[in-house]
Amino acid sequence: MSTSTPSSHPFDQAVALVATGAPHTFQGQVSQDYWNMVGPYGGITAATLVQAIAQHPQCLGDPVSITVNYAAAVGAGRFEIEANPVRTNRSTQHWLLTVKQAGEDGAPQVVTTATAVTAVRRPTWSGSDTAMPQVTPAAQVPRVPPIMGGVQWLERYEMRFVQGTLPQRWDGAEAESLTRLWVRDNPPRPLDFASLAALSDVFFPRVWLRRAHRTPAGTVSITVYFHASREDLAAAGTAPLLAQARGQEFRNGFCDQAAQLWSESGQMLASSHQIVYFKE
Amino acid sequence: MSTSTPSSHPFDQAVALVATGAPHTFQGQVSQDYWNMVGPYGGITAATLVQAIAQHPQCLGDPVSITVNYAAAVGAGRFEIEANPVRTNRSTQHWLLTVKQAGEDGAPQVVTTATAVTAVRRPTWSGSDTAMPQVTPAAQVPRVPPIMGGVQWLERYEMRFVQGTLPQRWDGAEAESLTRLWVRDNPPRPLDFASLAALSDVFFPRVWLRRAHRTPAGTVSITVYFHASREDLAAAGTAPLLAQARGQEFRNGFCDQAAQLWSESGQMLASSHQIVYFKE
Repeated sequence: MSTSTPSSHPFDQAVALVATGAPHTFQGQVSQDYWNMVGPYGGITAATLVQAIAQHPQCLGDPVSITVNYAAAVGAGRFEIEANPVRTNRSTQHWLLTVKQAGEDGAPQVVTTATAVTAVRRPTWSGSDTAMPQVTPAAQVPRVPPIMGGVQWLERYEMRFVQGTLPQRWDGAEAESLTRLWVRDNPPRPLDFASLAALSDVFFPRVWLRRAHRTPAGTVSITVYFHASREDLAAAGTAPLLAQARGQEFRNGFCDQAAQLWSESGQMLASSHQIVYFKE
Repeated sequence: MSTSTPSSHPFDQAVALVATGAPHTFQGQVSQDYWNMVGPYGGITAATLVQAIAQHPQCLGDPVSITVNYAAAVGAGRFEIEANPVRTNRSTQHWLLTVKQAGEDGAPQVVTTATAVTAVRRPTWSGSDTAMPQVTPAAQVPRVPPIMGGVQWLERYEMRFVQGTLPQRWDGAEAESLTRLWVRDNPPRPLDFASLAALSDVFFPRVWLRRAHRTPAGTVSITVYFHASREDLAAAGTAPLLAQARGQEFRNGFCDQAAQLWSESGQMLASSHQIVYFKE
């Protein structure tokens, strides 16, 4: 899968890591291409951690789950990832990860924590209990310009909203928080575990949609469960995925979100959840 | 909230921890009262980690989220928890946790990893987008004996199934994986963050229900988002909660589960997700 020619795609540049020589440690550079309002897009941080695991010489299998906790604002510049396989079993492996950046005093500070599980998966009975909703095919849904101008990471995704785009009016009218959109990298790029992790965070805050009210909000913790195999990812290729998200409960400064991502052919590739801070 | 008289409830005994004197480190004893088939009930492990955080002298606020990864079978006897608040902000705090037990050679081995977020929460606009389903009230649903005899932890919960109990026949008939039950501690015990975490894992494997086929299965990673405040927990008291779980995707040895827990009065107290290994 690896190649000696680095891809020129902004995603590959954003998740590029170099082993530092210290045990389990990689260094990367925050990408301006995926800059959000006050730091990098949370999805690209998750993707970078998936990448660190994949690059680790002791990595066993492929990602089954990852939980990423956004502990502090990540600034521009370099960061260091420690990706430690703290327990390796016969077919599963458990990871503890931290991202550190130099603080104001120059000392490294934890800005992100994560855990992950990788596994060697084998074919079993498989089935679904959450079918892809029947929606208009991607090719028939108009592509929208980035829903908020000037936010870099939004330029990195091609989005076609089927349902639940940003409210037309911020008038405080309460509504359901369900969004469905067709989405892929911009420019298109073959799907892999890292980009699937990034795509799992592609939704704007549910509280904005639920309330038609724009309050400061940010992901505190996201979990992604990977249902796709490498073969499934290859089959998905560069086609858009159907991504769906809904908030469940909004209470006292935090709300949750349940999300699913399906291939164009209707296979669930990932399910994801997050808890999001909102200010008021 | 603390008292010098230890409660005699099996739950309090199971999550009891003693600070070892080493930084961030607590020692506990695996409870036989919550023994599952080959190790302790996963929910009690999650509860014990919540308890470690609550007992930590530097703890800021109450739990917002916890992710627990079951890295290896936990045996009988003692265990040691390291609960490290790696990042403390003004109103949120991020935790890295590990549970270790002596391996065959006597050296400590990681058996569980976790991350958690605690926060000082303040009142904001609050609302829901997933209402409690309308079901028969708990008092009108018959209490069932433990659904599998001889499994200790099942004796620790009072369960009243509304929908989706264990299949009557293991005949391989495919069906939906939705379970709804009223559930509380047995004997009843006032709800707190630790017991809410434990209750989030109370469901038998979704793959058993989906397929009417009993295959070895076990939780690999669980995440709990806490929507309840201390006041909400006090209001819930010892009343049963409505607990709902559904599998979404079952593929190549792993399936996920999305769950919600509501108070009897209809407030969502927690949402939870897990990824579960199944053998075939």
